[in-house]
Amino acid sequence: MATEIERKFLVVDDAWREQADAGTEMVQGYLAAQEHCTVRVRLAGSGAKLTIKGASAGISRSEYEYDIPEVDARTMLGELCEGTPIVKRRYRVPHAGHVWEVDVFEGANAGLVLAEVELDRADEALERPSWAGEEVSGDHRYYNACLSRYPYASWPA
Amino acid sequence: MATEIERKFLVVDDAWREQADAGTEMVQGYLAAQEHCTVRVRLAGSGAKLTIKGASAGISRSEYEYDIPEVDARTMLGELCEGTPIVKRRYRVPHAGHVWEVDVFEGANAGLVLAEVELDRADEALERPSWAGEEVSGDHRYYNACLSRYPYASWPA
Repeated sequence: MATEIERKFLVVDDAWREQADAGTEMVQGYLAAQEHCTVRVRLAGSGAKLTIKGASAGISRSEYEYDIPEVDARTMLGELCEGTPIVKRRYRVPHAGHVWEVDVFEGANAGLVLAEVELDRADEALERPSWAGEEVSGDHRYYNACLSRYPYASWPA
Repeated sequence: MATEIERKFLVVDDAWREQADAGTEMVQGYLAAQEHCTVRVRLAGSGAKLTIKGASAGISRSEYEYDIPEVDARTMLGELCEGTPIVKRRYRVPHAGHVWEVDVFEGANAGLVLAEVELDRADEALERPSWAGEEVSGDHRYYNACLSRYPYASWPA
């Protein structure tokens, strides 16, 4: 078990691309998306993972992650997951001592670009890059589990 | 992914004990117990497993099972699982070419004894032992996920 401490921001422009890697395509879905815990299946590159996260306490939550066979993940995504699978490309972007992850969503969530950064402590100092705009860490709408149920394309204008 | 094909019966007396092994103590809980899938955490003997099962189609359902660290299972059981943990002792009982599993429930489900047998095919011939009474394969009340929410002790008399 690990503790995930993460802050999340809207991305306001493309300046992050200058420092980004080539990105990794990800497809993920939710076996369960509940208040007290989520169970996620993710295909990323050539690997697959099952991830369980507990309820959020501020910007922290417990996280359990296991490698699973890719074929299992594909079947679960096709047959057991609720909502719309999340398809996105994740880029790693180093900035001022942290590695940010920029998620460029596709499909039903196309148009949405989010930046996340994992911290060691909730009160850790963070230098926000110019391309990171409004913080949305506590906003449920931007949780991937919620985007699976209520994709960005379905949001009121 | 495997397919679990299983029949379940009420146990009417103790005659099964003559052929039974010493049994294994199990504690299990549910991260999610939904119509379309369940996510179970189980401690059994010195091991721990995470098991995902799909919706039932007759007596069959898809099943994905992974070994996980025991410490993870204990934390999940304590912090993330819904309902009452299921505590039971499972005995293996060979009978007429099949290995039956007899679950003697404890705690909030004490008094309940169920026998399960896994089959290779849904229409496989099965010789029912004398101690196996009414079949409850399709009865949701006897699903462990349901017993976790509505323990036997809470059932109307």
